[in-house]
Amino acid sequence: MPDSNPLVLFMPSGRRGHFPKGTPVLDAARQLGVYVESVCGGRGICGRCQIEVQEGQFAKHKITSSNDHISAPGPKELRYAEKRELKPGRRLSCSATIQGDLVIDVPQDTVVNAQIVRKAATTRLIERNAAVRLCYVEVDEPDMHKPLGDLDRIKAALKREWGYETLEVDFRLLPRVQKILRDGEWAVTAAIHHDRETGTPHIIDLWPGLHNAAWGIACDIGSTTIAMHLVSLLSGRVVASSGTPNPQIRFGEDLMSRVSYVMMNPDGAEKMTAAVREAINELIGKVCGEVNVHESDILDLVFVGNPVMHHLFLGIDPTELGGAPFALAVSGAVHLNAAELDLRANAGARVYVLPCIAGHVGADSAAATLSEGPYRQDEMMLLVDVGTNAEIVLGNRERVVACSSPTGPAFEGAEISGGQRAAPGAIERVRIDPETLEPRYRVIGSELWSDGPGFDEATKEVGVTGICGSGIIEVIAEMFLAGIISVDGVIDGSLAEKSPRIVASGRTFSYVLKHGEPAITITQNDVRAIQLAKAALYAGVKLLMAKQEVDHVDLIRLAGAFGSYIDPKYAMVLGLIPDCDLDKVKAVGNAAGDGALMALLNRGYRREIEETVRTIHKVETALEPDFQRLFVDAMAFPNKTDPFPKLSAAVKLPEPKALVGAGNGENRGADNGRRRRRRPR
Amino acid sequence: MPDSNPLVLFMPSGRRGHFPKGTPVLDAARQLGVYVESVCGGRGICGRCQIEVQEGQFAKHKITSSNDHISAPGPKELRYAEKRELKPGRRLSCSATIQGDLVIDVPQDTVVNAQIVRKAATTRLIERNAAVRLCYVEVDEPDMHKPLGDLDRIKAALKREWGYETLEVDFRLLPRVQKILRDGEWAVTAAIHHDRETGTPHIIDLWPGLHNAAWGIACDIGSTTIAMHLVSLLSGRVVASSGTPNPQIRFGEDLMSRVSYVMMNPDGAEKMTAAVREAINELIGKVCGEVNVHESDILDLVFVGNPVMHHLFLGIDPTELGGAPFALAVSGAVHLNAAELDLRANAGARVYVLPCIAGHVGADSAAATLSEGPYRQDEMMLLVDVGTNAEIVLGNRERVVACSSPTGPAFEGAEISGGQRAAPGAIERVRIDPETLEPRYRVIGSELWSDGPGFDEATKEVGVTGICGSGIIEVIAEMFLAGIISVDGVIDGSLAEKSPRIVASGRTFSYVLKHGEPAITITQNDVRAIQLAKAALYAGVKLLMAKQEVDHVDLIRLAGAFGSYIDPKYAMVLGLIPDCDLDKVKAVGNAAGDGALMALLNRGYRREIEETVRTIHKVETALEPDFQRLFVDAMAFPNKTDPFPKLSAAVKLPEPKALVGAGNGENRGADNGRRRRRRPR
Repeated sequence: MPDSNPLVLFMPSGRRGHFPKGTPVLDAARQLGVYVESVCGGRGICGRCQIEVQEGQFAKHKITSSNDHISAPGPKELRYAEKRELKPGRRLSCSATIQGDLVIDVPQDTVVNAQIVRKAATTRLIERNAAVRLCYVEVDEPDMHKPLGDLDRIKAALKREWGYETLEVDFRLLPRVQKILRDGEWAVTAAIHHDRETGTPHIIDLWPGLHNAAWGIACDIGSTTIAMHLVSLLSGRVVASSGTPNPQIRFGEDLMSRVSYVMMNPDGAEKMTAAVREAINELIGKVCGEVNVHESDILDLVFVGNPVMHHLFLGIDPTELGGAPFALAVSGAVHLNAAELDLRANAGARVYVLPCIAGHVGADSAAATLSEGPYRQDEMMLLVDVGTNAEIVLGNRERVVACSSPTGPAFEGAEISGGQRAAPGAIERVRIDPETLEPRYRVIGSELWSDGPGFDEATKEVGVTGICGSGIIEVIAEMFLAGIISVDGVIDGSLAEKSPRIVASGRTFSYVLKHGEPAITITQNDVRAIQLAKAALYAGVKLLMAKQEVDHVDLIRLAGAFGSYIDPKYAMVLGLIPDCDLDKVKAVGNAAGDGALMALLNRGYRREIEETVRTIHKVETALEPDFQRLFVDAMAFPNKTDPFPKLSAAVKLPEPKALVGAGNGENRGADNGRRRRRRPR
Repeated sequence: MPDSNPLVLFMPSGRRGHFPKGTPVLDAARQLGVYVESVCGGRGICGRCQIEVQEGQFAKHKITSSNDHISAPGPKELRYAEKRELKPGRRLSCSATIQGDLVIDVPQDTVVNAQIVRKAATTRLIERNAAVRLCYVEVDEPDMHKPLGDLDRIKAALKREWGYETLEVDFRLLPRVQKILRDGEWAVTAAIHHDRETGTPHIIDLWPGLHNAAWGIACDIGSTTIAMHLVSLLSGRVVASSGTPNPQIRFGEDLMSRVSYVMMNPDGAEKMTAAVREAINELIGKVCGEVNVHESDILDLVFVGNPVMHHLFLGIDPTELGGAPFALAVSGAVHLNAAELDLRANAGARVYVLPCIAGHVGADSAAATLSEGPYRQDEMMLLVDVGTNAEIVLGNRERVVACSSPTGPAFEGAEISGGQRAAPGAIERVRIDPETLEPRYRVIGSELWSDGPGFDEATKEVGVTGICGSGIIEVIAEMFLAGIISVDGVIDGSLAEKSPRIVASGRTFSYVLKHGEPAITITQNDVRAIQLAKAALYAGVKLLMAKQEVDHVDLIRLAGAFGSYIDPKYAMVLGLIPDCDLDKVKAVGNAAGDGALMALLNRGYRREIEETVRTIHKVETALEPDFQRLFVDAMAFPNKTDPFPKLSAAVKLPEPKALVGAGNGENRGADNGRRRRRRPR
């Protein structure tokens, strides 16, 4: 027999069920597991539980929905609409009851079981289940017959109205309880934090009456840049995002120089800890200031960072990370109070730091893994985050492996003659005519090509100052595609006869990308630097592929700033990444920051990544006997031993040619060795 | 078929069982639930698990025990004996194995599952199960193949060796983990705290290698005196006990004057909080100094106190306790970190404060209830702690009721003409010859009676300066027994003819206890003050008896300083306490301090008293319509409405006589009203 009770369908989740007439819509949502926020517990005062009725016939769902099928606004709703304004069509689901079949829309902007993160290429939903929730309760007045304390009666109300069987309370609140309760005339809002897997939830703050604001911070502490999101824990919306340079740069440009600074200076770690915390506090002040959020309403903060950043942020000496066995002081997730780090947030705010995977593969990689989720799917996904080290994760639902490979700073433009950081004036795109060998390029800050009209005018102010990481990849790849560079990375000096761009410098040759002041030249050393960097990266990838026993990958995700700017095609032409359908290669931006955001909005993700990190198979390249061979093979463009059939289908790769005696001694046998196995010499 | 394995009997617990030959004695003890401490986890280095074999035939237990039935000392024991010394006969139970039938003695002094608390009249065993335990572990060295952090490997070792599935870690320790682990050459001792009912155990400190000291503090914060025990959490022994005056006395002698001080002074609560914490810190320094204990080895502290002391200690404004409805800020047990109170203890030490029963019945009463345990037995026990208020608890296994009654300060010697605090020179014992009405007395500091030889010599230095609480009870009771005072409390002026001790003073009469300088005289007002105080106490007792629907009590426990000094017989003669076999009335000293000690040594007692306090029926005398009538009835000696058959059997009570017109207007009908119900006028 069909259920004669009205049918209710919730969108966008599509969950549906039959409910007796008169059931509040909020109760129906709860029963179906549709997350609708409510701070006030259905008293019609917080306005968090808004929904809309979709009217019409929904043939697909065999349901006809109408505003006649929901109760007319009752006194609670009318009062709320009068005091706080309720947009036309909006209803409070705690008050509105089911009177017939309904299609209910849970709007994204007020509520929500979903959070939109805008990304370069994708939009994703994050189901919400924050570690902190706000619970409004009306508390019994003191009673001499039942002499429970103020706090104990608050706990009793939280048990009665919100189902909390046991609660711990931050001691700091005890001296304030009496006044809060009386100021609120026996009504309070409690912020309850339930992060720890096995622990009891904690009351971390109390406010008189209704308190309707709870904010969170997700922060990625990069060696170069600290990036931060400010998020409403009630609606799930990101309301401000910002970044600031990591002030530790003044102690050392890259990670190892910062570790060295600590080794040389007794108070080095302390100073860097203070510097990064101060920068984070300023950034918190900035994002809060932008949208007028009180810092005291920040109740939960999530941090990620590489192991050295992680240790310095937590006040741990990173010296051990400077040498084998690269021992982390702590690898598991860290839970603490924001006050213990002197962060600008609520005095009871909690901090969660994602776990580190290994001594070189940090909480940022864990967060990127959480964001991209290789372990959530069947396809074999390669996730690469390139910095001074490349963190490489490879896996699928069955198994995930990870390693770090020492790419060095070449990809970031360091150790490259004309290299510079990605900034206005830096060359980021290059094309070389294979016939004339003449280049054209674009610089950051302008959409124009150098050989087109208006370029000089457009770049007059900032000039053309150097070449950034993505530009280096492109120019070397184009040089390779134009036949200027051999598969072994030698600049072909014989072309100097054909083009004035090829010039001798000592015993090797260079390619002049730009004449004038400054001249920008790609030297043989620059090519070698990129070869070393890309060989390290590719050898790491190959090592993981061997561990997984696969000869190809299905998906490639390029994370981080470098990954966002390089053109996947050129990365593959040079052999930074293995052969793959080009449309399966995606730049995913700050995946670490996205992972931090996910862990902030849903504590289920914390348990998920902790469990994943425990099961990830960690590979230490320094201990792998094959790594050196893979590294040597990977010096070639794209690689000495691997075919690139999918790339070859999309891009015409030059026929390998022998370059004998090209004016230097570096030609290590420019045979067609790509399909032959060779032992390193 | 009888078990052919050897039989092992553990003393003093008497637990027994059969175990295969070769079983370590420690394992056998564990299996039987006999608590034998071990810090090092059976490595033979901590020496905490010592036992002794009792040799001989134990006919009662049908067992013959011999040192031949235990394994010869192995290398671990020999090494320990060499390095640390092992007393003759002592064995390490982790190393010694069962080879035949054994009677094993678990010595009190090293180990133990028992703690001797010396009390006025009793010795009790406290089974040990402290909230903090020390766990020594050997930790894996860092491994690049399994890149777990230092802390994570410590946790893994604690799981492997001690069975801890989940552990939280105080954040403060993170920056120290690396050095501790390396200083200990990959061995550490962790202090693990497991207090909270539902929470995860916490690592609160770490030491390199073996750390073999863990201390606790049990403290009773009285309005007048702060009393403290220093206890080994490993052996259970109390090694130092001390007390200090509560420095809050300078803000107000009694509780209400301290609350008034807070009401009048904006920083009053803050100053009193600082004062009491400072005094506690000094006391911690004193007890530690006496026995050379490092304050940093204090890992757990338990505090009790009345509601006002409780609030001021925790930094909570006690103003609400100054008037109806006498709302406590918190009534449940409080858990916090010692650092939050700036206490002199380990930086990770935890504090536990027992629950309060009601706005006038505090954590001290809860502790006394825990110590005396009315709820653990079938007999109806009355537990009375007399101070400015009397806290009264009455109950048995079935049900416990409690109230507070406003006795005022008369019992403490205040508001009494010759009254003084209990101190050398104060009269504490009095006898009056019923024929001659001549008194004799003893003073604190001397064993001699005033009419005996050597008294003047013995008291020459301190003199006879006044009369303390117990002396007042005795002198008035003796005056009553001698017929000087009527059942209604009127001093019989007609006796002035018979004895020069009875003198007129205005319209009433007085009794001169001591001539000379200072003269000590018991005035009619003094008798009235004691009558009011005892009537309040007795009315409270009667109210609780009515709640319990009983007409007698089986056991009486007198707690606190006053209870320790008064003679139960005189207390009953005056009707402070109800009729009871005199040998069932016991003074139990600082029962609150004993309860604190129990909660320190066994966290099971914390849960027990929390549960008990939840179920205690709280009676607020101010709300009870019967209280006023009971109070008026209780003004008579011993009481207007109750028979005292057991007391009468032991003490010859005077025949009530009418005292009409005894020179004042206070005679309210000196009939033989003790067996008649009367309504208050």
